[in-house]
Order: sequence, then C-alpha cells, then structure tokens
Amino acid sequence: MYEPETPIQEIGERGLLQHLRSRIPEGPGVTAGVGDDAAVVDTGPLTLVTTDVLVEGVHFRRSWSPPRLLGRKALSVNLSDIAAMAGVPRYATVSLCLPPALPLSFVDGLYDGLLERSAETGVNLVGGNLAASPGGVVINVTLLGQGDRILLRSGAQPGDLAVVSGTLGAAAEGLRLLVQGARLGAEGLLEETGVWTASSAAALLRCLRAQLDPVPPLAFGRSLSEREVVHAAIDVSDGLSGDLLHLCRESGLAAWIDPAKVPVDPLAAGLERARGGDALRLALHGGEDYELLLAVPPDRLDTLRDLAVIWDLPLSVVGEFTVGEPGVSLKTARGLEPLAALAHDHFGVATAEADSSREA
Amino acid sequence: MYEPETPIQEIGERGLLQHLRSRIPEGPGVTAGVGDDAAVVDTGPLTLVTTDVLVEGVHFRRSWSPPRLLGRKALSVNLSDIAAMAGVPRYATVSLCLPPALPLSFVDGLYDGLLERSAETGVNLVGGNLAASPGGVVINVTLLGQGDRILLRSGAQPGDLAVVSGTLGAAAEGLRLLVQGARLGAEGLLEETGVWTASSAAALLRCLRAQLDPVPPLAFGRSLSEREVVHAAIDVSDGLSGDLLHLCRESGLAAWIDPAKVPVDPLAAGLERARGGDALRLALHGGEDYELLLAVPPDRLDTLRDLAVIWDLPLSVVGEFTVGEPGVSLKTARGLEPLAALAHDHFGVATAEADSSREA
Repeated sequence: MYEPETPIQEIGERGLLQHLRSRIPEGPGVTAGVGDDAAVVDTGPLTLVTTDVLVEGVHFRRSWSPPRLLGRKALSVNLSDIAAMAGVPRYATVSLCLPPALPLSFVDGLYDGLLERSAETGVNLVGGNLAASPGGVVINVTLLGQGDRILLRSGAQPGDLAVVSGTLGAAAEGLRLLVQGARLGAEGLLEETGVWTASSAAALLRCLRAQLDPVPPLAFGRSLSEREVVHAAIDVSDGLSGDLLHLCRESGLAAWIDPAKVPVDPLAAGLERARGGDALRLALHGGEDYELLLAVPPDRLDTLRDLAVIWDLPLSVVGEFTVGEPGVSLKTARGLEPLAALAHDHFGVATAEADSSREA
Repeated sequence: MYEPETPIQEIGERGLLQHLRSRIPEGPGVTAGVGDDAAVVDTGPLTLVTTDVLVEGVHFRRSWSPPRLLGRKALSVNLSDIAAMAGVPRYATVSLCLPPALPLSFVDGLYDGLLERSAETGVNLVGGNLAASPGGVVINVTLLGQGDRILLRSGAQPGDLAVVSGTLGAAAEGLRLLVQGARLGAEGLLEETGVWTASSAAALLRCLRAQLDPVPPLAFGRSLSEREVVHAAIDVSDGLSGDLLHLCRESGLAAWIDPAKVPVDPLAAGLERARGGDALRLALHGGEDYELLLAVPPDRLDTLRDLAVIWDLPLSVVGEFTVGEPGVSLKTARGLEPLAALAHDHFGVATAEADSSREA
C-alpha cells in the first residue's frame, strides 16, 4: 500500500490504474467493466448519454473543495442532465487529467466521492482513463442512462407554465462565501466561516453545500416519465434566465417570469441581503442550482404537485410560455421587460444571451 | 459568420456551441442529438463504452499536428478500443477544454477532422461539452459501440498464438521525426522534412501519418466477432510488450515473443537504422500503433488469415501464450529472457512493468 501523500508520479500510471480498479465494485448490468479496451454494459433500446467536465481554475479550486466533494459533484452535474431527461442513470466513465505531483490522497478522495455518489444513485463506474496534465486537474465524467418516455427541451407549448423545483441562488451564494474564506471539510461540515460569524452557520452550510455538493432531484425527474404531466424539461445549470431561454429557443416560444414568484433560497437571500446584494439577481442568473425547470400544461399542475410532495420537493410556478420570438421577459408593474440572460460564459465574455445579434 | 482567426472568447461559449452544432449532421439512430440535456440514441441490448483523451503538451503539440488531424486522431484512438472488442462504433460525445484565446480556425479544423473520421466510420457525434481551459487544449472523446460476441482481454488460453496485425514502430518513429522538425500539413501531405532529405519522403510520410493520423483496423476487428477465430484481443496502444503483458495479466498466463517475427515497419526501420537506432525496440515498446494483438488457437490461424486477406491486412505470429506467472519473455538463442514492458507512463516515470513489486 502507498502512503496517502505519495505523489502519483511515484506510483505510476499502471500502479494508479490498478489501485483505482481495486476500489471499484462490480455492479449489475456490467458484462465487462474497468480493465478491458471498452466497457460492455446492458442497456435498453434507448440510451441516454451526457458528458460534463470540471476543470481546476475554472469550475473549482483545490483549496475550496475537498476532493471527496469534488468527486460527488463531478457525478452530480451529469446526474442532473439525466434527471432533466426523466431518465435513470446507469453507467459512468471517468477520465482524469492529473498533475504528476498530485498526492494519492487527492485521487483517493475524489474516488471516495465518486463511489459514494454512484452507490447513492445506482450508477456503476465502468471505466475511464488516466492522463498526465501539465496544468491543473480535469475531471470528465460521461454518464449513460436509460429512459422510456424521454423529456426533451423542445416540447413546450404556448400556455404551459414555467415551473421550477427547489430554491434558487444558494449555489451562487456559496461561491461568494468561498471567495470570502468560508470552507467545508471533507465530510461536508462547516470548517471555516470566513468573514461571517458562527451565527450564520446554518446559512453558510446550506449555500456551501449547494455549491460544492449539489443534489439534483433525480427521483422526481425520473417520476416525470411515468405520467404525461410535463411537456419539456431542462436542468438549471446556467441560471434560471439562461436555461429558460434554452427551453424557449428549442421550443420556438417566448416566456415571461414573474420576479415575485422566483423561489429565492431564503438562507442565501439572508446572506445576500446582509452584504447589500441582490438576492433575486442571484436566483435569476446565478446558476449551478441543478434544479429542474419544466414546461407544464396548466391542467396537469395539480398532478405534478402531488408527485413533488412524494419527494418533499417545493415547486414554484415562475412564469408562462407564450407565442413569440424566443426570448425571456420579466413581468413588472410597467408590463413585460426583456430579460438579458446573464449566463456565465466559459470563454470569459459576459454575454447577454438575449442579444443574439452576434450569433451565426 | 466569423473570421477564422477570431478568438473563441469573442464568439462566446453559446455562440461557439451554436456554430459547432450547425456543423453536425443528424444521423441514424439519434432520437435527440446535440442541444438537449443528454443525447438519446438507439442501442442494442449490449453497449460498448470507451473514453480517451488527448492533452496538449502530453499527447500532442499544436505546432506538430494540424487541428484536422488532431480531430481525426481523437476519434481514432477510441475507434481502436472498439475494434479490439470486435464492436461497431456508433455514437460519440466530444468534450473540449479550450484556452479562450484559441482562434476559431483551430476549433473548426478539429471538427473538420472529427466529422470526416466520423463519416468514414459510421459514427454520429451526438453531444459534448465546451469549457475554458486555463492551460492547453484537452480533447476528451467518449465512444459508444454495439457488439454481439464481444472479445475480452481475459480469454487467452495456453497454446494460443500471439498474433499482431499490420506493422509496428511507425508511430513511434513518427514522434522522433516530429522532434527533428518533419511536419505534415492539414491535408496529411508532407510539408517539412526536418533534418531529413526529400529522398526519405515516402518513409517520413508513412511514419508521420502513423503518428498523427492512425487508422485502426476497424473492419477487421469487427469481422472477428462473426467467427470464433480469436480468444482474446487488445489494441496495441502502449506498445507490443506492454499490451501483451495486459493480455497475460487479464488471462492469467505468460507469453513469449520471438523477436525475429515482430513485424517491424520497414520504412520506420530504414529511418531508425539511418540514425543508428534500434528498430526492434521501437516495434516492441514504441506504442501508439493502434493495431490489434490477438490470442488465436493454432487451428484457427488459417481462417484468421483468410479474414485478414479480405481487409488486405498483414498478420504476424509473434509468439505464444503459455502457463505461468503473468509476464512476457523474449525468445533468444540463450532461451527465454524476461522482457520488461517499457510502456510510456503518463505520470513521468519509466516503469518497467514486468517489475510489479511496487504495485499494490
């Protein structure tokens, strides 16, 4: 066995592969898992595929996120996509680019989280890849799922209600708290309060967890396939404004949001108010909420609410889809005002997505 | 439309996504492709999954590889894994981490290669992900395939012949040529001969193409599933010595190689001899050949040769699997001598894999 602080370059690629392989349990449906040229898995006739990446310095900092939580999140951001398709997650591959000086404890922590979150959600890790990284850590997870009645982004109808699960803004608030020195430990408990006092502990914990260890409503998402209660779905990863715009574009519709109905996370709102910020803005544009945004025919709303009660999940009707050019408006006292979707742009420009004039 | 040299940060994540999406054709079996939370694809009851990454500064240099060839190779290294399972490649996701200052022409070139190679092999690009990279370019492709009779690494039997397709060493020689200034252009033609003269053009072209644009024997690999001619298979990516060791470990057998039977690529051998190097060493340990290494029962060899003729593929019997501790030997005049598998280690140590004493 290796010491936890052994740099992975001393263990070598093959040694590390063997070490990780020994940690991955065999699971149902896996004919051949880690260790062959490709994994061989049982699937139904329709397979869902999604891939998402966490890049050090872009999506996370090693000093902000214990590796175990990073492993959990690397899977969770993909689980969220499967939830938005009303699918069942089944198999994941993990492709890691790692700096050679990284200690084994980091990789083991990452796998603690990946394995734990996989077990929680019935996912089997079936393979992956290890490569050196001349820069930082890159974690690319590809998740396969199964589905029968698939929910697409393109199915919204005029008159459908825009309904969002859970609360919004806590993950974005969590990011601000990290900047201010608040930290979670590997077990997900509050380790540092940063500039805040211990009296804010419950709010800090809620927001840091939302940022570092999001838990998408997978079971609720899955239950949407069983009854025809929803026309379209998307996960709220870019932010409510940006993801509603995605639904509008794919469905060829406009939509409006009533700001009074947006479910701003109450604990995030308290912290944001304390620093003089705009909590509604966080909830509209913050992103990384990993909740579901749904297009629901009004006559199915009660059925949907009954479903959400089973999973103890709040639902909020935040607006409506209408006939019109794809775009999102805010309902104000002065009428409907265009809402720029201030989604995070990975390449560094603050794109107002509503201004699509520059797009090809 | 954008100018080719526009930095992608000026186009923005969403603009680039839309641009790339418009380039990807719809294909058979794709219920929902690029643009939803997950792709939805038709699969059989058994699905093959493999993932492989190309990291700038580790697997490639931008000055060495035109982006079109890089796109081709990013898919080909995954195709090779599906070939080694006797599968049919079907769907791919592409996850890109890109420096924000990268010009659009690079991303378009990459997609030229990805789309071209996909079309050649019947693969549909069904989704992916874009993220910024604070370091270099990272290209992660996950490939799904179908198979009925799957070839595993673990099926070799004592007495099986070790058979390799094609020739070995050209890709490793190609890497040396790149270091010496030889270059291919985007169309795969010889652009610079480096320290070599034009009289070596045919050999330079062969070896540079083997390195920058490998073409795994996909159709031959697929044909292996139809007849029971092969017990086990692996693709030669780490090098003959290393990959034979993988087969040995998974099958619980030893194996020997007759160095006189190793199909050293004749053009690579010529160049290597000209610089006073050891061509056999290249062929044994060089890696990235993307040929197939098979465990074949002696009484099926003729049938296998008949198959290979159809695909115009040379086959070489290089050795044999035997009862014994997993390990590879070289057959010499003095008898069998242990062969250290000098596989490339991504984390930077030259591991002699035969020395497994440090492995957990």
